Amino acid sequence: MANSHHKLIILGGGPAGLTAGLYAARARMDHLLVEKGAEGGQVLLTDWIDNYPGFPDGISGFDLAEKMLAQARRFELNSMFGNVTSLDLSEPVKRLQFEDGDTLSCDSLIICSGAHPRPLGVPGEVELTGKGVSYCATCDAPFYRNMHVAVVGGGNTAVQEASHLTKFADKVTLIHRRDELRATKIVQEKAFANSKIDFIWDTTVTEIKGTEGVERIQLLNRNGETSELKVDGIFVLIGVLPNNEMLPLDILKADAGGFIPTDLETRTAVPGVMAAGDIRSKEVRQVVNAAGEGATAVLAAEQYLANLS
Amino acid sequence: MANSHHKLIILGGGPAGLTAGLYAARARMDHLLVEKGAEGGQVLLTDWIDNYPGFPDGISGFDLAEKMLAQARRFELNSMFGNVTSLDLSEPVKRLQFEDGDTLSCDSLIICSGAHPRPLGVPGEVELTGKGVSYCATCDAPFYRNMHVAVVGGGNTAVQEASHLTKFADKVTLIHRRDELRATKIVQEKAFANSKIDFIWDTTVTEIKGTEGVERIQLLNRNGETSELKVDGIFVLIGVLPNNEMLPLDILKADAGGFIPTDLETRTAVPGVMAAGDIRSKEVRQVVNAAGEGATAVLAAEQYLANLS
Repeated sequence: MANSHHKLIILGGGPAGLTAGLYAARARMDHLLVEKGAEGGQVLLTDWIDNYPGFPDGISGFDLAEKMLAQARRFELNSMFGNVTSLDLSEPVKRLQFEDGDTLSCDSLIICSGAHPRPLGVPGEVELTGKGVSYCATCDAPFYRNMHVAVVGGGNTAVQEASHLTKFADKVTLIHRRDELRATKIVQEKAFANSKIDFIWDTTVTEIKGTEGVERIQLLNRNGETSELKVDGIFVLIGVLPNNEMLPLDILKADAGGFIPTDLETRTAVPGVMAAGDIRSKEVRQVVNAAGEGATAVLAAEQYLANLS
Repeated sequence: MANSHHKLIILGGGPAGLTAGLYAARARMDHLLVEKGAEGGQVLLTDWIDNYPGFPDGISGFDLAEKMLAQARRFELNSMFGNVTSLDLSEPVKRLQFEDGDTLSCDSLIICSGAHPRPLGVPGEVELTGKGVSYCATCDAPFYRNMHVAVVGGGNTAVQEASHLTKFADKVTLIHRRDELRATKIVQEKAFANSKIDFIWDTTVTEIKGTEGVERIQLLNRNGETSELKVDGIFVLIGVLPNNEMLPLDILKADAGGFIPTDLETRTAVPGVMAAGDIRSKEVRQVVNAAGEGATAVLAAEQYLANLS
């Protein structure tokens, strides 16, 4: 494998990368998909997906990833495991450096390295993810009909989703570490006017407790007081972090959050380099739009390669 | 129904519209999806779809549309049939005028009216669509392994796809009505250098013949000579036309082709109006990216509505 060259390399095997792989394989492009863990990306962490179109009863994240992979394999997806530690995008031929010392090069590259929610980093959080701990209200709100949920955060996403959650939950408790919200005024006003939402200020979550699912969360007020709150679920909405450790952020003109800006066709600032899925600088991160961007990115790569002399 | 108002109206029920409907219904937004024919859009015309991620063996266009619709209905999609003849987008409250005289209004609107390939308009074309007549090489090329196919057109898409088709077909005959191509030079050069492609100049297709599938096409040279060519399939790649008859193109700042420009989040030039799927001004038109844009558009509509006073 060392030092081999491909027309197209796809970095990452989540929904964006697997869809890119499907399109590249089907187009019989000289391609390689590189994934460091298991194909599927964040989807694998998602217990149940109700909003990927085409599955009327929903589908588990694991099954969806497996189906996407099987489909790409049917068209002879070329993939490998490997941990890319750096990318050199300064020349027309792009170079990938692997942890084990190997290198690969390509003419075009689709970055689908994804993102992950910023975690609270408290005991119980990892164990109860998908069992009451959620990072996506759009995805999971309907599972909390007539229940009591906590939302952690104070930005637009947290406050808007707190309002959104009241369409399902009986009660939403918004927990914020400061004494005022960062969300825009009108979003705040709507939340304040909503009788189903109450607010706990100057407070952080220090532990999430429960056996089968979330049962209680432990809170710490700035003044040092601790307390417990009984909830059926907790939405942690304190930001999304890009998986960008291996990316040359300067040449890709990464935004302030470290995400990669692109045009409508997923092209980055570097000719021949596309970005698709959650690593893209954008507002909406869903499985189906990641997949859509994977398809778009391959056609952008084909365009780029067709015009290479 | 006459004169009723909704927070969100979705215009069109193809993959973009059905996905928007799924997201809007799941979010319990006050929404209505308006479709003039059958839900599914162009997908219904597609015999077999191999490149919608999640279906390893592929799926028929009809089945995919039905699954998307069933999924949205599970979350109580609100939809109706009706033929919108004009849209008034000059005020914050948007108004839809129907053929039968009824009107509807909304605060936010997602335009998913779609597009259709420019047809040749010759006998046999409609009857043999999906049976050898195709408008999408990306979709259908793998079905023509070791066969002889014709490509009609002279632009970038036609010439690039002719090259692409040689990865599957034994022989590709490109038929163009002029004596030179419009495609960019390098794309042309690659096609000229490809021994599997031959060219028929100054010629139009006047009829497509066959019973179960495409068997022969009839050609007319500019000099008046007619001839027949035996082919297994014909790719008509002479452009895509937007379904925009009902749209106020000036205020939406439509592009030269009549498609609607948007930002990355599908927002058009009119606040509160999004465009998703094939009606969008973009380069790649695939089922999966239409669906992805439908999801993005609903979240853009939610943002817009959250900030409405």
